[in-house]
Amino acid sequence: MTYRNLDATTAFSQLITLEALDVSKALTKERIEQALIDAGSSVTYSWAAMPVDESHIEVLQALSDEQQLIQKYHRLLSGEIMNTSENRQVLHHLCRGRVLGESQQVSVDQEEKGAFYQQQLHLIQQFSDDVRSQSIVGSTGKAFTSVVQIGIGGSDLGPRALYLALRGWAEGNNIDQLDAHFISNVDPDDPFDIIDQVDLETTLFILVTKSGTTQETLTNYSVAKQAMEAASLDPSKHMVVVTSKQSPLATSTDFLRSFYIDDYIGGRYSATSAVGAVVLSLAYGFTTFEELLSGAHQSDVAALEPDIRKNAPLFDALVGVYLRNVLHLPTTAVLPYSHALSRFAAHLQQLDMESNGKRVNRDQEVISYQTGPIIFGEPGTNGQHSFYQLLHQGTDTIPLQFIGFTNSQRKRDITTDNSTSQEKLIANLVAQIVAFARGKDDKEPNKQFPGNRYSSLLFAQELTPSVLGTLLAHYENKVMFQGFIWNINSFDQEGVQLGKLLADAVLKGAQGDEVLQAFHTLLT
Amino acid sequence: MTYRNLDATTAFSQLITLEALDVSKALTKERIEQALIDAGSSVTYSWAAMPVDESHIEVLQALSDEQQLIQKYHRLLSGEIMNTSENRQVLHHLCRGRVLGESQQVSVDQEEKGAFYQQQLHLIQQFSDDVRSQSIVGSTGKAFTSVVQIGIGGSDLGPRALYLALRGWAEGNNIDQLDAHFISNVDPDDPFDIIDQVDLETTLFILVTKSGTTQETLTNYSVAKQAMEAASLDPSKHMVVVTSKQSPLATSTDFLRSFYIDDYIGGRYSATSAVGAVVLSLAYGFTTFEELLSGAHQSDVAALEPDIRKNAPLFDALVGVYLRNVLHLPTTAVLPYSHALSRFAAHLQQLDMESNGKRVNRDQEVISYQTGPIIFGEPGTNGQHSFYQLLHQGTDTIPLQFIGFTNSQRKRDITTDNSTSQEKLIANLVAQIVAFARGKDDKEPNKQFPGNRYSSLLFAQELTPSVLGTLLAHYENKVMFQGFIWNINSFDQEGVQLGKLLADAVLKGAQGDEVLQAFHTLLT
Repeated sequence: MTYRNLDATTAFSQLITLEALDVSKALTKERIEQALIDAGSSVTYSWAAMPVDESHIEVLQALSDEQQLIQKYHRLLSGEIMNTSENRQVLHHLCRGRVLGESQQVSVDQEEKGAFYQQQLHLIQQFSDDVRSQSIVGSTGKAFTSVVQIGIGGSDLGPRALYLALRGWAEGNNIDQLDAHFISNVDPDDPFDIIDQVDLETTLFILVTKSGTTQETLTNYSVAKQAMEAASLDPSKHMVVVTSKQSPLATSTDFLRSFYIDDYIGGRYSATSAVGAVVLSLAYGFTTFEELLSGAHQSDVAALEPDIRKNAPLFDALVGVYLRNVLHLPTTAVLPYSHALSRFAAHLQQLDMESNGKRVNRDQEVISYQTGPIIFGEPGTNGQHSFYQLLHQGTDTIPLQFIGFTNSQRKRDITTDNSTSQEKLIANLVAQIVAFARGKDDKEPNKQFPGNRYSSLLFAQELTPSVLGTLLAHYENKVMFQGFIWNINSFDQEGVQLGKLLADAVLKGAQGDEVLQAFHTLLT
Repeated sequence: MTYRNLDATTAFSQLITLEALDVSKALTKERIEQALIDAGSSVTYSWAAMPVDESHIEVLQALSDEQQLIQKYHRLLSGEIMNTSENRQVLHHLCRGRVLGESQQVSVDQEEKGAFYQQQLHLIQQFSDDVRSQSIVGSTGKAFTSVVQIGIGGSDLGPRALYLALRGWAEGNNIDQLDAHFISNVDPDDPFDIIDQVDLETTLFILVTKSGTTQETLTNYSVAKQAMEAASLDPSKHMVVVTSKQSPLATSTDFLRSFYIDDYIGGRYSATSAVGAVVLSLAYGFTTFEELLSGAHQSDVAALEPDIRKNAPLFDALVGVYLRNVLHLPTTAVLPYSHALSRFAAHLQQLDMESNGKRVNRDQEVISYQTGPIIFGEPGTNGQHSFYQLLHQGTDTIPLQFIGFTNSQRKRDITTDNSTSQEKLIANLVAQIVAFARGKDDKEPNKQFPGNRYSSLLFAQELTPSVLGTLLAHYENKVMFQGFIWNINSFDQEGVQLGKLLADAVLKGAQGDEVLQAFHTLLT
């Protein structure tokens, strides 16, 4: 296997000679019908409004081949150490619980990892079934009605985004629900707000910290524990933990149950591990979570295809690199036309920016090209009434990633002016794709739209658990491929360490550091 | 008054010759103590970690003088037509209800505008007092316990951000609260979700649409109305409207009350008008809203100061232009270390990106320099566990705007490891400012932090209504000044029109437009 920097590849030297396709002129019925790739779970990826044609695709295929992207994915699946700086395997695909390439045989630390994740999943199934059937109840004998996840970063953003994404679906399908809440921030106004909102007597807490040492999470655990004690409840009957076996919490008897993850599942890739499994199985039932895993697996399978014309995450990754490194566009907006995906962009911010916001390659050399873009986004149509002005008529081009669904989740709608709300939503999505691409001329310059603003589209019939799983894994796989293209390690996060050290120093008085002290004085 | 493009000014030709100050070396105790500007309401702005020193400040002052920024602000206050493309005045400062410069004398359409906004405010005071004291009750005689605002864009983002920002403060100060909810998206999963969450019998709806024609808002109004009728409630006893006198809703008898705004208050600047006043006065009482207005006024006053060293929004605006047009940094992250400000960045996205995402100047000429940046952000410490990796070690520099407070809102805290949560929060904020600025060397390249990443800081003792008002207006005034510097019209939003037209076309079948039809076919 060869690991080389992007700018050392032959394909990249060809790619930079290729002018962007003018999307304002390129859109035709035929192109729209053909520029489609199956992404799994009936999710389809459209690149019709991306600035690439056959000439680009050929070079992007060559880049994929030269950087051995599919082979590297296979290596990752086979348990090769891909997190080089931390000397770790990268095994989140194994959490889907399905045979995929070489992944069934991965053994680390004398443990068959696929079997280990499956075992945890079985324990979670049993536990969530018992809670939902009220075989397990709170310390006063009452059934649990709500769950509160305490975690931050990957222990918060992914699970929260997925939980919100399925509420409407669960209602539309009459799935029994336990309300879920999330506590993340060390700001005390976060935990005390949530604790006031729930009935502690019928609340089950899920403490999620892989290391067992995350400052915010342990602090908020103490808040929750004190609140339960103040309410004369037994915390050990109201709290489970998701942690690693090496964590100081691993063998604690303070918890009703302990579920395990390990160092081979990065926080931002952990939504399909126990980190997401416990809360989602409790909230919507284990079957729902299983469907999500099945959808994620479908993207993982789709990602194995070497032909980029048939591999949605790979195509998405390669075009993204063209936008970033050839057209020099530093930002990407994620625009789901689904209110259920209101926090999906926040999850993708972590997934993408924490994975690929790197300036050294996997061999610890500083690189001289740009890596991960800035991700932001809000659901449509809301964003239309907010920042779309800049997207349409600002001075920068911002590539767009639209997501849309034919049907709404709750199956409740209203007809006004001869159309349903869902029809209006879709009409707006279609209109925006075309408005951004084609633009519009006008006598008055402030009514001109330059157009040629690029977008892709991921779409499906409905946002079901399986479709959601595919979307989640699509982006995980896209980010992984981009990391391979850039020759960086997408699986460490050393950039979070310095702040931790300095925060500790501040808490200890910052002796000898006048700068820390001076800022601290301002704020206290 | 002279209106000239930024690149036609003498000061700008000097500014582009100035190298950025190396912040990694510049921070000292003295600089941190001196680089402070009073922003009003005891809010202070620190530019210590911004890449400017005296040489930059002199040129930025010259730019401010040459572009006549303070004079233009005076002209705006005096009722001059600053929204040139729509031939309208810009009067949101008048909504604070206080004498400010020339603003007390503004008369438009044979109406004294200050008096008009004041009159609306009095009506809102009376109404919210009556609802909160239960003199006005629902159609079945029960007191109102919750309010639901139906609106989108400026009728949603600002009011929602402010509502969330004050919940903890209201709890910490034992203020009686009515729960507020917001419905914005045309996606039917949004309104049906909220309607299921409230008890319609005790819910008051606030319909907010200036034009009275906003598709999303009228559609969701119909959803709410049908739901009330289905519950045998009289909608006209459960719904008020905020609209303009020219709107088709203005004289409708379907509402319990009608409150008015007008075309001189842009949606994104409307949080201190009736658009925000009704929901906030109902939720927290009129006194609270009055304090917010008083805080906003303090920023408006601070913004009158011609010396940029003493004018926080002006300084912030000018440094922002240096970052954008000289250092060519296209993005700004807003990072409030306060969970209460969890949606403040979403409001600023609209405020900034819709105002200054423009490519033509106020005289309808295409300009050749960059305007408004991309805004994104999440509260700290959450962001630290998400996208800060890229901010610290990515390949791009992203200017940061930190916000922090000495005290939390709820006045409830816990001590763990010898510090309170609030102390940990502040320690993290201080640590991040310094980590970004100074960076850190290391033998291992992936543990190196290049540093020299710029940030500003807005801080205060506590996030009270008055402080929140100051923060809100600080950004309104900053955005206004940047628009003046760029010589653009920050008060129209033609970029939202094309999508509306095409969405209508799609809903009517998109006859003759194969491209619209082809995308529509994919999604249906």
